[in-house]
Amino acid sequence: MSTTSKTLTLPAPLPLDGGGELARVEIAYETYGALNADRSNAILLCHALTGDQYVASPHPITGKPGWWERMVGPGKPIDTDRFHVICPNVIGSCMGSTGPASEASDGQPYAMRFPVITIRDMVRAHGGLLDALGIETLHAVVGGSMGGMQALSLAANWPERAERVLVIASTSRHSAQNIGFHELGRQAVMADPRWNQGDYYTGEAPDSGLAVARMAAHITYLSEEALTEKFGRNLQDREAKTFGFDADFQVESYLRYQGSGFTQRFDANSYLYITRAMDYFDLAEEHGGKLANAFAGTQARFCLVSFDSDWLYPTAESRHVVHALNAAGAAVSFVELSAPHGHDSFLLDVPALDRVIRGFLR
Amino acid sequence: MSTTSKTLTLPAPLPLDGGGELARVEIAYETYGALNADRSNAILLCHALTGDQYVASPHPITGKPGWWERMVGPGKPIDTDRFHVICPNVIGSCMGSTGPASEASDGQPYAMRFPVITIRDMVRAHGGLLDALGIETLHAVVGGSMGGMQALSLAANWPERAERVLVIASTSRHSAQNIGFHELGRQAVMADPRWNQGDYYTGEAPDSGLAVARMAAHITYLSEEALTEKFGRNLQDREAKTFGFDADFQVESYLRYQGSGFTQRFDANSYLYITRAMDYFDLAEEHGGKLANAFAGTQARFCLVSFDSDWLYPTAESRHVVHALNAAGAAVSFVELSAPHGHDSFLLDVPALDRVIRGFLR
Repeated sequence: MSTTSKTLTLPAPLPLDGGGELARVEIAYETYGALNADRSNAILLCHALTGDQYVASPHPITGKPGWWERMVGPGKPIDTDRFHVICPNVIGSCMGSTGPASEASDGQPYAMRFPVITIRDMVRAHGGLLDALGIETLHAVVGGSMGGMQALSLAANWPERAERVLVIASTSRHSAQNIGFHELGRQAVMADPRWNQGDYYTGEAPDSGLAVARMAAHITYLSEEALTEKFGRNLQDREAKTFGFDADFQVESYLRYQGSGFTQRFDANSYLYITRAMDYFDLAEEHGGKLANAFAGTQARFCLVSFDSDWLYPTAESRHVVHALNAAGAAVSFVELSAPHGHDSFLLDVPALDRVIRGFLR
Repeated sequence: MSTTSKTLTLPAPLPLDGGGELARVEIAYETYGALNADRSNAILLCHALTGDQYVASPHPITGKPGWWERMVGPGKPIDTDRFHVICPNVIGSCMGSTGPASEASDGQPYAMRFPVITIRDMVRAHGGLLDALGIETLHAVVGGSMGGMQALSLAANWPERAERVLVIASTSRHSAQNIGFHELGRQAVMADPRWNQGDYYTGEAPDSGLAVARMAAHITYLSEEALTEKFGRNLQDREAKTFGFDADFQVESYLRYQGSGFTQRFDANSYLYITRAMDYFDLAEEHGGKLANAFAGTQARFCLVSFDSDWLYPTAESRHVVHALNAAGAAVSFVELSAPHGHDSFLLDVPALDRVIRGFLR
């Protein structure tokens, strides 16, 4: 898939957690706001699983507004009148950064020859981008969901790099249930014959499987309450049940739409690789089995935010990180916000989140 | 699929909620314990979505013990020394009762020509079976999950039929989230090209799609805590992550096993029809939009049981039914049991459930 973003090629091969290295890594990224003279006002904004660099600019495929327009812009909580916001597309993704759909050295797409990467690999690539941009120290690293994992990984592995670490609706490790939902999605993709062991770039993509994976994920992004409030048992454009297998219920129609819409903008192999990276994420394991070790000696200030209706990464996961930060003697603030939408609350209209972010980045 | 059970053919066509009727309905069923002389000791036991009539006898395909051996048998909480237990396979299923895999009048499988049925249609068929067996009044109707829906439907629509109604881990209506998970499963089946619009009985079945559907459902049957306790992030038969897409984690291996094992014993079209029946279930809607109306004038005694870790049909759903029964002036007891396993708790070792069931059926 194409990108309209700036693209940078890392000057050296990228070492990978799985061993070996990835050559000719390209990173597509967007920036918002001006970098100041002493290069001290940069914020690295990390996107979620199916997010991208178009945080505050229209998506080149869908034409939709950026995914965090409400948060990033002049005068907004992440104020581009003050900050230079950098949002890179993660490696493994499909919006311009090197991923399974990219050309390998033989001129063919990597497909499943792409190496399995980790969250830390993504962040290592971000570091290469920052180096190339001449940004040594970030005013802050910010991310929600998988973006929060990247923020935690950066804080743990490159502790000098960010003065502030803002982690929203995230976790330091994927739970068995998290892994289960992702595995279900991967199996849905791989069960689609058009997936063809990942070699589909010259033919039809496994859209049916990817749509099912997206439907499953989407259910986990919303609370039961949000689904009930939004759809309940309302019927879709009909007065009575049809006694058939059409989308009688609004929630069915909505999920089908979410599933099929997603396939237009996302690569199925990228979905496999990024979900795998998330499942592999366990910050404690990386640091001798003790999460506090991950943050030993950190001078950064942390802020963790959870939502009470988020059952994907519930508040207990954020609290777990906060306890580790406390044990490491780090400066940390923590707030559980009340919002009805579930995990997706971090993307939606929650004014209290605006206030927390604005205050922390001050 | 075959059955070793007794099979009864209903003497008349079965009227259906969707209109029309189903001819030549066969019902496969198992019985345990002797019917007493005045035919007053019968218990109708209703199975769940993927359950069957083999409640306390080995499954003819898998060879596994019956699904509720721990509850049904001589001296057990549902005591076959005292009670005559009848467990029919629901219509729409695939273990001997008429369903989409059964022959239509043209000698070919119904496949998707099978009518969309409801929970009430299933119970209407059970009523036909009881009529044929000469059992007018049940000592009790008992069911967990979809079995509980059948018990509620029987109590609401044939209030004279059962003296006691025991509803475990169930609901009076499918929520938007419930429908969403089922729709995801149906889409997974239908996305499998071998599904072939339901016409696969002479070729390969859509096992890949059905396995994905089962994986999704299985996650909803267990609590996050249960998955964490059982699997956590433990690796499967390996010392380290493989940086590949094999089932590195035990939870992945477990879900794959659950998915593929299921396809050996269940028909994909049955999965579509039964999930549809559950999604359509809304006992209040059937009774003028007011759940209490469903139970007006009932003389039966009710017992509702929920589990605190069940997020598929959480306690609030049982409480909702209890409030309606109270409003209808019915005799009802209600208990929320503490058990860590989630929805599947009703099938597992929860001694408190044994005591509740034994006490209520006394």
